[in-house]
Amino acid sequence: MEYDSNTPLYYKVQNYILDLIKSNQLKEGDFIPTEMELSNMFHISRPTVRQGLNTLASKGYLKRQKGKGTFVTKPKIIQENTRFIESYNREMNKKGLISETKVLEISIKVCPDILLEKLGVDEGEKIIKLKRLRYAYGEEEQDNKPILLTTVYIPFKKFPNLMLYDFEKRSLYEVLEENNIFIKKAVREIEAKLSNKETSKLLEISEGSPIHYISSFGYGEDGSVIEYSESIYPGERNKFIVEINR
Amino acid sequence: MEYDSNTPLYYKVQNYILDLIKSNQLKEGDFIPTEMELSNMFHISRPTVRQGLNTLASKGYLKRQKGKGTFVTKPKIIQENTRFIESYNREMNKKGLISETKVLEISIKVCPDILLEKLGVDEGEKIIKLKRLRYAYGEEEQDNKPILLTTVYIPFKKFPNLMLYDFEKRSLYEVLEENNIFIKKAVREIEAKLSNKETSKLLEISEGSPIHYISSFGYGEDGSVIEYSESIYPGERNKFIVEINR
Repeated sequence: MEYDSNTPLYYKVQNYILDLIKSNQLKEGDFIPTEMELSNMFHISRPTVRQGLNTLASKGYLKRQKGKGTFVTKPKIIQENTRFIESYNREMNKKGLISETKVLEISIKVCPDILLEKLGVDEGEKIIKLKRLRYAYGEEEQDNKPILLTTVYIPFKKFPNLMLYDFEKRSLYEVLEENNIFIKKAVREIEAKLSNKETSKLLEISEGSPIHYISSFGYGEDGSVIEYSESIYPGERNKFIVEINR
Repeated sequence: MEYDSNTPLYYKVQNYILDLIKSNQLKEGDFIPTEMELSNMFHISRPTVRQGLNTLASKGYLKRQKGKGTFVTKPKIIQENTRFIESYNREMNKKGLISETKVLEISIKVCPDILLEKLGVDEGEKIIKLKRLRYAYGEEEQDNKPILLTTVYIPFKKFPNLMLYDFEKRSLYEVLEENNIFIKKAVREIEAKLSNKETSKLLEISEGSPIHYISSFGYGEDGSVIEYSESIYPGERNKFIVEINR
């Protein structure tokens, strides 16, 4: 990293720590040197050191604990599906992350009572259920945990051939589009809940951790429901971003 | 309520229960009659009764517990500030809810280190801090609990007269607009966390409850930060809605 006289001093501390994290010399949970130590190392004042650390903390790379010190954390993945209708794979790839998917269940079944109204199907009609665990990670990262558990329901009549596809490799939205089914509108509700036992085990989080619970409707060109999904995002690994203009 | 032969049968059960809730004969936490009892009352089948109850459950009026029965819950307030830049009061009034605000703190202080970059101010500059507890409730509701704890920070130089206003009565956005300060863009981040001790006490929720933690930047016409805020919405009382078109 090159510095000239215009580079703010706190950048030095910030980049020093960031390099240690990126190169895996500092790992999640590791404590970094104290403000005093960094101040001596770089011959800069403690407030300036603090500014560098605060910047990294605000980006999610560090967590500062009063009286204990500062340790390394993993920044949350910023989910932008509050702005765009896009496949998960494409969204993660745009961020330079590798995405991976594990299909936990794909099945055809009679629509349960509770989903009849949501999917706009009649009693006795069949639906397709697709339950997946999704991962996203940087090229050099190890020990990756899931960032999303998602279950999508689709009226069988909308897409009888869905079972033929491998949803560990293919994105649902891409497959729908190949078959000329286009999601034109999505309505999503975001709730904050605690993870239950089953979900915690699948997502590798502690029971009772905070989660984002998102239910989503995808509507086709004729306004009918193509897909209804329920997704669980661990709070410790995800945050959602919303941008509004007027 | 009038019914003709075209009214679906499950509407009868649904509206019967809803009327009991609206008229306060059934309160939050009360168990409603069993499916069997309702089936006998209305001379309709149990699946139809179930459909009526499921509809109310999906709207947040009921919660069904396996083996225990069905009890009354309070629907979450749907927050639409993921779509519009609008004052809290106006948003709640549109929903037919009465809004109320308690100012916990309004102060002028030297900007803390951690907010310098966020607000784009220099070290030593002053900022205004406004911390408020906000309520929203229907006309006949009693026993109202806060639905939002929000702290907003504004660079003092942007609006030196801010302290002159009564923010229990006035909305910040309205006051800004009266003074020709317009928020043109907002960027919000939604995280899921657990409430801490202090916050739980203020919001009247259990410690460790799930909360939506929203940090928000409001930008003016020139692109500079007018306001930065941190808001805590109890998960049990709020949900966010996002609508996306393409």
